[in-house]
Parts: sequence; structure tokens; C-alpha cells
Amino acid sequence: MRCKFSFWAIFLEVVIIVLFVFFVEYETTQQVNATTSTKTDEFFQLYPLFQDVHVMIFVGFGFLMTFLKKYGFSGVGFNLFLAALGLQCGTFAQELLHNKGKKFHIGIKTMINADFSTATVLISFGAVLGKTSPVQMLIMTVLEIAAFAGNEYLVTEIFKASDTGASMTIHAFGAYFGLAVAGVLYRPGLRGEHKNEESVYHSDLFAMIGTLFLWIFWPSFNSAIAEPGEKQYRAIINTYLSLVACVIVAYALSSLVERRGRLDMVHVQNATLAGGVAVGTCADMKIPPYAAMTIGSVAGIISVLGYKFLSPLLANKLMIRDTCGVHNLHGLPGVLGGLVSIGVVYWEKSNLSVVAMQAAALGSSVGSAVVGGLVTGLLMKLCSCDQPPDEDCYDDSVYWKVPKFRELDHLFFQHVNHNHLEHEV
Amino acid sequence: MRCKFSFWAIFLEVVIIVLFVFFVEYETTQQVNATTSTKTDEFFQLYPLFQDVHVMIFVGFGFLMTFLKKYGFSGVGFNLFLAALGLQCGTFAQELLHNKGKKFHIGIKTMINADFSTATVLISFGAVLGKTSPVQMLIMTVLEIAAFAGNEYLVTEIFKASDTGASMTIHAFGAYFGLAVAGVLYRPGLRGEHKNEESVYHSDLFAMIGTLFLWIFWPSFNSAIAEPGEKQYRAIINTYLSLVACVIVAYALSSLVERRGRLDMVHVQNATLAGGVAVGTCADMKIPPYAAMTIGSVAGIISVLGYKFLSPLLANKLMIRDTCGVHNLHGLPGVLGGLVSIGVVYWEKSNLSVVAMQAAALGSSVGSAVVGGLVTGLLMKLCSCDQPPDEDCYDDSVYWKVPKFRELDHLFFQHVNHNHLEHEV
Amino acid sequence: MRCKFSFWAIFLEVVIIVLFVFFVEYETTQQVNATTSTKTDEFFQLYPLFQDVHVMIFVGFGFLMTFLKKYGFSGVGFNLFLAALGLQCGTFAQELLHNKGKKFHIGIKTMINADFSTATVLISFGAVLGKTSPVQMLIMTVLEIAAFAGNEYLVTEIFKASDTGASMTIHAFGAYFGLAVAGVLYRPGLRGEHKNEESVYHSDLFAMIGTLFLWIFWPSFNSAIAEPGEKQYRAIINTYLSLVACVIVAYALSSLVERRGRLDMVHVQNATLAGGVAVGTCADMKIPPYAAMTIGSVAGIISVLGYKFLSPLLANKLMIRDTCGVHNLHGLPGVLGGLVSIGVVYWEKSNLSVVAMQAAALGSSVGSAVVGGLVTGLLMKLCSCDQPPDEDCYDDSVYWKVPKFRELDHLFFQHVNHNHLEHEV
Repeated sequence: MRCKFSFWAIFLEVVIIVLFVFFVEYETTQQVNATTSTKTDEFFQLYPLFQDVHVMIFVGFGFLMTFLKKYGFSGVGFNLFLAALGLQCGTFAQELLHNKGKKFHIGIKTMINADFSTATVLISFGAVLGKTSPVQMLIMTVLEIAAFAGNEYLVTEIFKASDTGASMTIHAFGAYFGLAVAGVLYRPGLRGEHKNEESVYHSDLFAMIGTLFLWIFWPSFNSAIAEPGEKQYRAIINTYLSLVACVIVAYALSSLVERRGRLDMVHVQNATLAGGVAVGTCADMKIPPYAAMTIGSVAGIISVLGYKFLSPLLANKLMIRDTCGVHNLHGLPGVLGGLVSIGVVYWEKSNLSVVAMQAAALGSSVGSAVVGGLVTGLLMKLCSCDQPPDEDCYDDSVYWKVPKFRELDHLFFQHVNHNHLEHEV
Repeated sequence: MRCKFSFWAIFLEVVIIVLFVFFVEYETTQQVNATTSTKTDEFFQLYPLFQDVHVMIFVGFGFLMTFLKKYGFSGVGFNLFLAALGLQCGTFAQELLHNKGKKFHIGIKTMINADFSTATVLISFGAVLGKTSPVQMLIMTVLEIAAFAGNEYLVTEIFKASDTGASMTIHAFGAYFGLAVAGVLYRPGLRGEHKNEESVYHSDLFAMIGTLFLWIFWPSFNSAIAEPGEKQYRAIINTYLSLVACVIVAYALSSLVERRGRLDMVHVQNATLAGGVAVGTCADMKIPPYAAMTIGSVAGIISVLGYKFLSPLLANKLMIRDTCGVHNLHGLPGVLGGLVSIGVVYWEKSNLSVVAMQAAALGSSVGSAVVGGLVTGLLMKLCSCDQPPDEDCYDDSVYWKVPKFRELDHLFFQHVNHNHLEHEV
Repeated sequence: MRCKFSFWAIFLEVVIIVLFVFFVEYETTQQVNATTSTKTDEFFQLYPLFQDVHVMIFVGFGFLMTFLKKYGFSGVGFNLFLAALGLQCGTFAQELLHNKGKKFHIGIKTMINADFSTATVLISFGAVLGKTSPVQMLIMTVLEIAAFAGNEYLVTEIFKASDTGASMTIHAFGAYFGLAVAGVLYRPGLRGEHKNEESVYHSDLFAMIGTLFLWIFWPSFNSAIAEPGEKQYRAIINTYLSLVACVIVAYALSSLVERRGRLDMVHVQNATLAGGVAVGTCADMKIPPYAAMTIGSVAGIISVLGYKFLSPLLANKLMIRDTCGVHNLHGLPGVLGGLVSIGVVYWEKSNLSVVAMQAAALGSSVGSAVVGGLVTGLLMKLCSCDQPPDEDCYDDSVYWKVPKFRELDHLFFQHVNHNHLEHEV
């Protein structure tokens, strides 16, 4: 049965390598005489920012998804696989579109954009975490990257909209794509609480590794492709300010909505990042520092309230179970970021056609995500024979060799008791 | 009861945002025509160093404090909250003082200095870890940042003393402030061993994440605000050399002081970092490489001996329980760094008034920390109704929703046995 | 008994500091008037790359070796100790050779090269993990650094061979050195499965922290000492492409070789990195992007097959137990990298003498590693009285104070039952 996964993975890798033979090359000094040294300079100026984003993609997203007690291998392991695949597909899809089908060069911007396109897949992965097979995820990765590249082309080249930190094209897109897929793949057997869908003490600490690296490097994410100079400088500081304010407010709200006033790890792991999402689109615009902090504060409020009240509603009424709550971390704050950017653009330029384009970008991001997600979900449903059975969802042991002893496993308990008795005697 | 925390957190955030409205703005090209490109260059040159320091603050300090078996959520979670709050207060307090109450710009140095001021709070947090309420920590953060900014202004602007890596103004200050607070908040009920005040196997590994990121990026910490060029180059290499020597000596001593010659994780997690603290003040001075290594070695010795012999004394005789042993990691090595710097300044300049100013900086750092800590401790005592009761100290479950199953919890044991019996039958 | 470790550690540190007194100094503006600003510029251009490599050495290698259920403290703790020692020995050995015994300056390249020489020790450490005493590891560190420096000098100065990413001089050398040591130290009592030589669920997640940081920063490792400009640019992108392709293929193979098609954490933690090793030597050469991806794919295949089929053979037939499987991660892919580089050099230069030199570099790296490893292993055998007894191999408690409660320990079980009964009554 899993030969299928191996076959498709190798097949895809071969296809990608062949495509690279025909379309991708390095820059050489012959081709770009005068500008080469500038290009190389840019490369090494942006390389530290690229590495920050890279850490977010692999360590940040990876460990953030290890919070489930029995699904840590999949959380961090599939994240690595999907990201590595997404990088290759993303490099190809985005550059090919922007170069109108001609050969293209790999530079630092190519690599940063590939990380960005991969981020959408990882966001959607969070929505379906624990309920899909590796082959289904392969399908999702390839199709979502294609849809993302299409929408990104539309937003930047046709609408000429501004979306530096990608609140709309990455966060809102990734979240609504994932929710649409989760909706199509809904299984009645997973209604109600699932015995594996909870954290243990240590898994929550592992998830914090992800949260912190995402939080720390978010200013690099929002500024990596900003215009060098003043705009990039603003993008970094606005993101930084939005995030610090978001943390304070998210903690306050988390304690407020819980009956006994205790903090909830779900909010700390996720809602503290909403400020980075929401400020994304207008990170490089001329907003004053306090505005960035206000955006972060509002995002923190929305995100905690979303986890507390909206997610249960989505699950029960709309039949959309969103494992990681990506709607609250990426969806709502992403839309907020888009809406704020429309306001800022209006206030900065007072040009209605520019404002309309910015609004069109938001609409197109959400719309293409929902449509793309529905189509992708249907295709994934065709492979549902691979899916983990309901009772084995959120459990690594379906797709991974797991160690003999795992906290809370039956075998572990037996061993505990056995050892104990042995020693007592 | 916790509405109090939510209220104060939101109130503080609103106050900070309002202050930012009136005092903080971005630099724009209109304002600083000629120098802007230089400023932007400086920003991006220092940005990687800033991110290194940022990782130390959030991942380094955060995970270092997860070593207690039941206090990991608080260790890393309150660290994130206090750091985010401290950054905002620190930005404000330091810049306002240095700009004599006028409006100021946010630049990369502002951000690095904000991280620095936050570090003092996190050091003090280590001394009171597990024994204070969130509201008490809020109070400590705000007051300590104010006291830090005052002393830092005194040291740099009045005494014109040199303290690049901040052995005195951050490490010694943070440690003695925290010890003073811990002394005031001493509770007889916590005398003797506490059942929760110990690590488990995995919590010690989580703490190593913190240790390693602090250790690796310490050269960036000590050089981030050094004069560009040769001084910054020396600050990096001196710190690097001090740290590598410190590791070797700390391991040797750790094994030496234990009866059966075994290594102690407490020393490995903490004493290996003492070299970075001690070399701080003179990191950018003209000391030869072997001197940096000697400073690191001595710091390693002092730190291990402090953990082994001094901390028990402090707890039993002076009624100061220092949860993380910040006195051995930051206090003693910080004072050592200050003393060495006095010697180096004397040897370099042979100017007694400069030497006196350097000594005054050390005295003022320790003195203001003790006074500030005592006052702050008394104010925190007024809110002691919020404090965790003695038997629930060092336990997340007072302030956090904890997962149903937690290693070593009663419920976990019950589950173990229950499951076992079920399967046996 | 452990006074021995403390004595040797302190003795070594004193010797190193004394050597630094006589041989190491900083650069000052007087010495290098014109070129200083260029040197400082280079320093800060390379500093972010250095920090990436530094994270790989301490966090990457350190956590990668925490996969054993009872040997996490040693994995990450001895890694820190050996790396700190190796950095100092490496600085000294390499610079002294290249400067023909004269005084030398510490610069950023010195620091990067020291990290590189340390990497060989950490690779060999992986082969003997769990079976050697700290004093034996001290011996290995010092001797291996000496052998490495000798071979590195031969390869770069005499053969003038190209080995930017050090597939041959670091990876193949470190692996075969370690295997030779492991072969000499073979103990019949460790034949067959050892009760401690397995992972638990959480230890595998800790190991993933190491894997991810190694994977992310590998492009920095392979490019850190490349010629600035186009060559460095190629080294980064070739490594990046090799790694992403390697991940896809390693996952596919891992699933393919397991009977039920499940993924194996051993492969995910290790084989995904083989692409970075294999592309090392020719990372900065003029190979097209698809060639880098092909090298990565082949490395992934070789590495997984090595873990599955070759490691058991080595253990049973050649009496070489390779705890971490460094042969599959560093040895085979390192040799592959060397072989490919011979081909590329032939194709680029069509100059047989250059090709012969490249081949000689590969031969010398493997040969000196085996000889050096055998000699070192024999010397380590003289100290075998310190070795952990067979039944306590792979167990921290021989050399570390371990917490009272450790997952799967007898004491933990007793506590579990005790607590449970107490509460029942």
C-alpha cells in the first residue's frame, strides 16, 4: 500500500529534476557583466533574512505541529517532507509564471519566494493535520502551489497590489484553502472529541520551540522581499512592534476567557503570532509605530476569541474540523491585514482605483483559496482509501515506526508494571 | 481573581501605546537627508546581531527556565510575556532618558538596547521562579526596567564608564535585583526541599536548548553595541575564547566537586555560560587572547563553586532562595567582570579618575540593584494574596491549563494502572 | 576515578592557554594599515555564516545525538564539551601548520576552520557514542584534530585539491576515523541488541531539533570558506538543491524498505542530510542545478540503504558497531562526494594531473583516517579501565547525576505504583 507513496514521491522528484534541466540555470558573469557584483551583493545582504525565514519554515512550522501527544513524528516529519517538496514546486511555478515560460535563474529572491509558497502548504497542512495520508498530502502540495502561484501572479502583476508580508496571499490563502479541504474531507466518524486529539505536557513544550522561532524571525519574513532601504526598515520595525503588543493582549485575553483565569497553551502557542500575520500587508507602508501596535493588539484579541468561540462553531455547524486552528492564526488575522491595508492605501494615496485593486487582491486570495481548496479536496477524496481509519487518526503509528515505548501507550504501561513487580519480588 | 492580571496587562498595553503616540516615530528621508543611507546600512549590518540577541532572550532564557519538572509552561511562557512587555517598557525608558524627554526614533540600536533591558528582568525572574504570581511579575518588570534605565544612564552618561557586554549593568544588576526581591519575598513555608523543585530527565534536555542558544550567540550579545570595526571584532573573539575555556573548566570542576565524580546538569546548563558574563565589560578592550581565556576559566570555577557551596548558604543563612542560581551565573561572574575591567582600564590608561568612574559604575550597578530590588520586593509583597500557596509553588497548574496527563502527576499514575488492569483482564 | 577526567581537562586547558600566550594575537590597525578595513568588512560579512555553522556544531550535532532513551545528557553534554575543546585544539593545530610555526592572528576564517576541525571529532563521536569514557574522548579529540590538520594541510597545500564543503576532509575523514576507533574498541559483550540502545518517543523528537538545524544551515557550512562572489553563490544554491531532493528520495526509500511501508525516524533524522555531505566537494564548481539535485537524490538512496543493509553487516561481520550510523550519513556520502568531484574536475579541466591530485585527496582522507583511527583506538584501549561496563553502556547515570525520576527507570515505576496505591487508599 505504501509503495504508492514511494512511487509518487520518486516520480515527482524525477519530473522536477527533468523540468530543472530545461528551465533553470545559474547566473554567470558572462551573462550579466555589469550587474553581477550588485547581484552578488544583494544575494549576501538577503541571505541572513532568507535563513531566518528558512528556520521559520522548518523549525517554526515543524515544531508548532508537534503539540499532539501521539502525532509528533508526523508533525515535524511530514512538515520537512512537504516543505522540501513545496520548495521545488514553488521555485518552478512562480518563476515560470513571472518569466512567461522562459528559462530562469536561481537567485536569493527565488529562494525566499519558494519558502513563501511552501508556507501556504504548511498552513493548510495544519488544518488537516492527523486526518490525511502522505499521498493525499502530496496531491495537496502540488495543487496548492499551483493555485498559490496563480493568485500571487494575479495580485502582484495584474492588480499591482501591495502585500509585502503576504497577509493575503500566504496567510489568508493558506488558511481558507486548508479549511476548504478539511470541509470536503469531513468524516462523521471524527465528530466529537477524539481520544488522540490532545496534548501531553512535553508535547506542548516542543510546540513552544516552533512558536518562539516563528515569533522571533517574523520581522524577517515580513521584510525579506520588501524594497531595500526605508521600506524594509519599516517592515521590520512594524512587525516587531505588532508582535510585542500582540503577546501582551493575547495573554490577557487567554486568561480572561477561561473560567478560572488560567492561561491556555493553545493561545500562547498560536495567538501570540497573530500580530505578525495581521501587520504583514501594510508592514512597509507609512503607518506610525502606535498603529502597528494597535493592529497587533486587535489581532491578538481576534485570534484568542476565534480559538475560544469560533472554532467549536466551525466544527459543529459547518463540519470543518481545523486541527491546529489555522483559521484563528492565519485566516482571520490575514483578512484583518488585508482590510487594514485597504484603509491605509486609501489614506496614503486617496486613489480609488488603487484601493479597488487592493480590495480585489484580498477577494481573489480568499476566493481562489476556497475554490482551489474545494477542487483539491475532491481530488484528495478519490485517494481516501489511504486515509488513516477514524480511530487511528492523530496517531503516528499508522505511517511511522514508533519506538516500543511511548508515553501513554499500552505497552509502556505493561512494561511499567512488569518492571515494578519484578523488583518488588 | 485573574481578571486582575488581564486588567493590568491590557491597561499597561494601552498606556504604552498612548506613550508611543506622543514620543516614538520612524526616521524618514526628509529628516535625515545625508545620513539616511548610512543609517539604513547600519541597520542591516546590525540586524543579524540583533536577531542573535533576540534568540537568546526568547529561546535562550525561555528554555533555560524549563528545567523544573512541573514548571515548564511558566518557564518558557512567562518568559515570552515578560520579555515582550520588557521590550516595550525598555524602548521607552531608555530612549526617553537619553533624549531628555524629547520625541525619539526607533532604530536598530533602540531594539538591541530594549533586548538588553529586558535581559535584566529575565535574570531577576530566574531568582523568583516558581514563587510569584503574574501580577507580581508585571510589577517587577515595570519597576526593574525603570531602575535599570536609571542606572544605565548614570553609568554611560555620567560616569562615562565602559560596559560593552554589560557584565555590570545587566548581569550583576539583574542578579542582585532578583536576589533582593527573593529575600523580601522569603516564605518560611518554602524552607527545606520542595517536592516540585527538581528536574526530570526531559526537562533537563529542554533546558539545554536554552543553554546552547545562549552560549552560541553570546559573542553577538557582547558585541552588538560595540564600536564598529576593531572593537567589535575584539568583543566577538574575546567572548568566544572566554566561553570555550569556561566550558572545559566548568566540566572539570563539576566532576571534581561531586563525590562520585559525576557531572551535574545544573553546572552544565549554567556555569558554562559564566565566561560570557565575566568577559562582558572588557570584551572590546585591548586584552590579549589568553587573558580572555583566563577570565572564562576563572568564571567557570567561581560559578560551579557558587552552585555547590554558596547557594545552600544563601538559602539557609540569608533566607534568599535563588531558584535558578542567578547569583552564580550572573551575579558573581558579573562582579568579576566589573573588577577585571577596573584592572584593565588602569593598565590601559593609567588615569585614576577613569578608573574611579569604572569602579563607581560597578558600585552603582550593585547598589541600585539592591535598593531597587528591596523596594520592588516590598511592593510585590503587597500583592502577595495572588501568590501561589506554598505547596503549589513551582507548579504550572496554578496559572495554566495543563494537559490531563502530565508525567508524575497523580492522574497519570491512575491512568497507567487503570489501563494496565483493563488489558490484563 | 573521575579526578582523572578533571585533572586532564584542566591540564589541557592550561596547556592551551600557555600555547595561546606564545602563538596567538589579534590583528591591530598598526600591523595591517591598508587592508584592515577590508579585513573587518570580511569579518562581518562572514560572521552570519559562522554563526550558522556554530549552531550546526552545538545544537545540530548535539541534539542529533540525543536519540537514545537514556543517553541524552551525554549526547548533548559531551558534544558541548568536546566541541569546546576541539575548537581550541583546531584553532591551534590548523593555523600553526599553515603559518609554518609562526605567530598567527585570529580572524573569522580561523573561527570557521576551527568549527570545521571540530566537526570531524563530533562525527567520530557518533560512531563510539555510549561506549567510551570522558577521558577516552579527550584523547580522541586531541589526536583526531592533529590527524585532521595534517590531512587538511596535505589536501589543500600539497595536492591543491578542491574540497570547499569538505565531503572528503571532514565527512569521510571523520566517519572512517570513528569506524576505525570503534573497530579497535569492539567488545564482545556488546554483540547483539543492547537494552539501552533504543529511542523513546520524546528522544526521537529531541533528535529532530538537531536534524533540522543541520539541514537548514548546511548551505552555510558548504559555502563558508568558498571564494567570495560567484563561487560562494553556487555553493549555497547547489547545497540547497541537493538537500531538498535528498529529503524526497530519502523518505521514499525509507518507506520502500520497510515491510509495512512505514517511515523510519532513523532515516528521517540522518539520511535527509546525506545530500549536504555528498554535494560538499563540488558545491562551488560549475555543475548545473539538476546535477546538484541528482547528487542529493543518489546520496539519499545510498544512505537509507546503508542504514538498512550495510550497518547490520558491519556490526556482525566486521565487528564495527557504529552507534549513530555515521558511515551512512558521513562516510558513504562523503566518498560519493569525492568521486563526483573527480569526475567534475576531469570534465571542467581535462587536466589529468589535477584529476590525480583530486583523487589523491580522497585517498589520503580515507587512508589517514583509518590509520589515525587505528592508532587512536589503541591508545584509547589503554584507558579502557574507565569505560562503562557492558551493561551500563548507553546510560548517562555512569557519568552524570540523573534526576530521581527518569522515564522507564525502575525508581520511576516504583514511584508510579507507590503514588497510585497511596491515593487509592
